[in-house]
Amino acid sequence: MAPDSKSSNDLLIHNSLQSICYKRGSLQLLDQRKLPLETVYLDIQDATDGWNAIRDMVVRGAPAIAIAAALSLAVEVANFKDFNGTSEEAASFIELKLEYLVSSRPTALNLSDAAKKLIEITSNAASTTIMPESVFQAYIEAAEIMLDDDVASNKAIGSYGSRFLQDQQKIVPRFSVLTHCNTGSLATAGYGTALGVIRALHAEGVLERAYCTETRPFNQGSRLTAFELVHDKIPATLIADSAAAALMKESRLSAVIVGADRVAANGDTANKIGTYSLALCAMHHHIPFYVAAPLTSIDLSLSSGEEIVIEERSAKELLHSRGGLGDQVAASGILVWNPAFDVTPAYLITGIITEKVSHRTRNFDSFTQLCLSLMNKLLYEQGVITKNNDAFNIKDFVEKAAGKSTA
Amino acid sequence: MAPDSKSSNDLLIHNSLQSICYKRGSLQLLDQRKLPLETVYLDIQDATDGWNAIRDMVVRGAPAIAIAAALSLAVEVANFKDFNGTSEEAASFIELKLEYLVSSRPTALNLSDAAKKLIEITSNAASTTIMPESVFQAYIEAAEIMLDDDVASNKAIGSYGSRFLQDQQKIVPRFSVLTHCNTGSLATAGYGTALGVIRALHAEGVLERAYCTETRPFNQGSRLTAFELVHDKIPATLIADSAAAALMKESRLSAVIVGADRVAANGDTANKIGTYSLALCAMHHHIPFYVAAPLTSIDLSLSSGEEIVIEERSAKELLHSRGGLGDQVAASGILVWNPAFDVTPAYLITGIITEKVSHRTRNFDSFTQLCLSLMNKLLYEQGVITKNNDAFNIKDFVEKAAGKSTA
Repeated sequence: MAPDSKSSNDLLIHNSLQSICYKRGSLQLLDQRKLPLETVYLDIQDATDGWNAIRDMVVRGAPAIAIAAALSLAVEVANFKDFNGTSEEAASFIELKLEYLVSSRPTALNLSDAAKKLIEITSNAASTTIMPESVFQAYIEAAEIMLDDDVASNKAIGSYGSRFLQDQQKIVPRFSVLTHCNTGSLATAGYGTALGVIRALHAEGVLERAYCTETRPFNQGSRLTAFELVHDKIPATLIADSAAAALMKESRLSAVIVGADRVAANGDTANKIGTYSLALCAMHHHIPFYVAAPLTSIDLSLSSGEEIVIEERSAKELLHSRGGLGDQVAASGILVWNPAFDVTPAYLITGIITEKVSHRTRNFDSFTQLCLSLMNKLLYEQGVITKNNDAFNIKDFVEKAAGKSTA
Repeated sequence: MAPDSKSSNDLLIHNSLQSICYKRGSLQLLDQRKLPLETVYLDIQDATDGWNAIRDMVVRGAPAIAIAAALSLAVEVANFKDFNGTSEEAASFIELKLEYLVSSRPTALNLSDAAKKLIEITSNAASTTIMPESVFQAYIEAAEIMLDDDVASNKAIGSYGSRFLQDQQKIVPRFSVLTHCNTGSLATAGYGTALGVIRALHAEGVLERAYCTETRPFNQGSRLTAFELVHDKIPATLIADSAAAALMKESRLSAVIVGADRVAANGDTANKIGTYSLALCAMHHHIPFYVAAPLTSIDLSLSSGEEIVIEERSAKELLHSRGGLGDQVAASGILVWNPAFDVTPAYLITGIITEKVSHRTRNFDSFTQLCLSLMNKLLYEQGVITKNNDAFNIKDFVEKAAGKSTA
C-alpha cells in the first residue's frame, strides 16, 4: 500500500470527489487521515492492503468500509497469474480472505453482511463449475455490483430528494440547505446520501448555498464535508454546531437534510450527536427537516428510537484538539459525556428520503399543526394516548418501496 | 511583569479560583493564555504591565479587564517613593495613565466607563487638596471599591440566584445545572455571574452536578469553565455544545443558567453564540432557562434584541484548532460564518437573576403556557398583535431594583 501521487490528479478531475477509485485489477483509496490538508490516494493491491486501510482509518463510513474490503480482494484475485487448486479450493480461499477482512472492524455490520453475501455467491459458483477462474470471476463481478449498487442507490437518493424538495417547496426558487456530519463520497462508495441530495440540487441549478456544521467533537463537517463541498465547487459555508439556530432565525435556510445511522419502525432516527438539536431548532423556525438514507438503514425490528443503544465515545475527543488526535485543550480532571449519536423523534422529521421512495409526514407551514404535533407528543409521553399519531407508518412505506422495486 | 510562581500556591488555596489577586501595593493576574494546562500568576507593578497584560490577553472578560487596568495604576501610585508636583499634576498624571490604559482595548466599554469614573474622582479630589498624596489615595480607594463592588455584586447574584431557584423548584431536592461559555472568576473580578449561581448552589449543598458546554469555537467552556469547576471541586461534566439537547432528553437537567452580554428593555438577551439554541431546546424539554447578570448589563436604550448588532469574528477560529491559535483542521477554501453572539428572545427566558432582584416570567410546567407562548410569538412576528405579551417588563424590574438599592 503506497501513496500513488501520479493517479491523484486524474482522480480529482471527476465531477464529484471519489474516495474509492476502482477499475478491474486496480483499486485506490483516498487516505482520509490526511484530509483536509493533503489529498493522497493509496494503492491497494490485495486483501492485506485492504485490511490495513480499514484498521488504520484510511477509509471510514459503514458502506465505504464494506465495499473497500470486497474490492481489495477482487483486485487480488483479478491479478492472480495462476491458482493451483479446484473450484472448491478457490471458494475456500475467498471465504478465508473475507473472514480475515471482517476482522479489520468486527463491529461493522455492513462489512460482515457483505462478506456473508459474497461467501454465498462464490460457494454457489463453486458448486456449478470445476474451473477456479470462474469462481474468482463470479466473486469479482459480485464485488463490482456492490460498488455500482451503492453509487446508484446514492444517486437515486439524490435525485429523488432533489425532486421531492422541489415538489414540496414550489414557492422557493432556490434552496439553502444545512447538513450535519459527513454523508458524502467520503462515507459511501460515492456521491453520498444527504450530501447526495445537496449535490443533486446543485447539479439541477437550484442550490443557493450549502451550510455544513463543524460536527463536534470529531469535526467530520469541517474536515470532510467542507472538503467535499469545496472540491465540487458547491457554494458552501461552515458554521459552529451551536450557530445553527441563529442561522435559522436569520431566515437563511430552506431545509435541513441529514443522514441516518438507523431509522426505527416508527420513524425515530439515530444519527450523529447534534442532529436532535438541529431538528428541534428547525421545528421552531418552521424549517423542514429531512432524513436521507438508503432503505437498508430502516430497521423494522426496532419499534422506536428508545430501543437504539447509543455508543459513548472517548473523553479524549473533547479534551484534545483534532477530535482527540491533537494536543490537550480542555482542563485536566473534568469528566466528559460524549455520546456518539442522538435520537431524533419522528414527530420532528418532515420527511424521509430513500433511493426508492420519499415520505412526507407533515406540513410545518401550519402553526396549528406544530402545536397539535407537540400536544400529541406530550399526551403520548404521559400515557394519555397509546399511539403517537405523528409517528411514521414505516411498514407501509417500506412495502411501497418494495412494490416500486419489483415493478 | 514576571511569572510569580511563589505566590501561585498561596493564591490557589482560596475557596474559589481568583484571576485578580490584589492587596494594596501588589497585584497578580492569572495568565489565562496558559490555562488550562498551566496556572501561572504574573506580577503587575505598574500601568505599563497592566496595558501589556490586557493587550496580550493575560486577562479577558469585560469586568475583569476594567478592574485589572484600574488596579495596575493603583499599584503604581501606591509604590511611589515621592511625586514631585502639585495635586493638579497628580490628577493629570492619573488621567494620562488611564487614557493610556484605555488604549490597550479601545472597544471595551467597561474599561472606558471605569476610566471616566476614576478621572472624575481624582479630578474632584485635586480640587479639594494641595497634597498630591491625597489625590493618589483617593484614586487607590476608588479602584479598590471597584474591585470590591464587582465581587460583592457577583456574590449577591449567586446568593439571589440560588435562593430563587430553590424557591421556584421546591420539589427538586438537588439541582443539575447546565451553563455555557465562561462567566466565572476568569471573566469577572471574582466568583462570577451564572457560574456564581452554580458556586452558591454548591456551597449550599444543593448542587447535584454542573454541566458545561465546550463553547465553540473558542472553547471558553472546556478551557476555562471546566478549569474553574475542577479547581473548586464542584462535581462537573463537559459536553459538546451539540449534545445539550440529548442531555435534556435524558432528564438529567433541572435548569440552564447563562450569563449575558447585554439584556434589552424587553428582556431579549445577547450572549455567546449557542445560547439561543440552548434556550430553544430547554423550552422543548420544559427546563427553566435563566439569565444571570449584573443590572449594568440591562440596556434600557435598546427596545428589543433586534437592535443589538452581532459581531462576526475571524473564520480562523473554526478553521484552526484551539479557537484559531493552533494548526489548520478544516478544509481550505471553505467560507465561514462565525457570529460571536446570538440573541435569545425574552419568551424563551424563564427568569433574569441580578444582584438586586430576580424576575420570573412564566411557568414552563404548563404545556398550555408553552403553546400560548409560541402562538403569541407568531402573532407578534406576523404583525397580528403589536405587543409581545411574553416580553419582560424590564422597566418595572429595574425600577424595583433601584427601590431596593435605595432602601
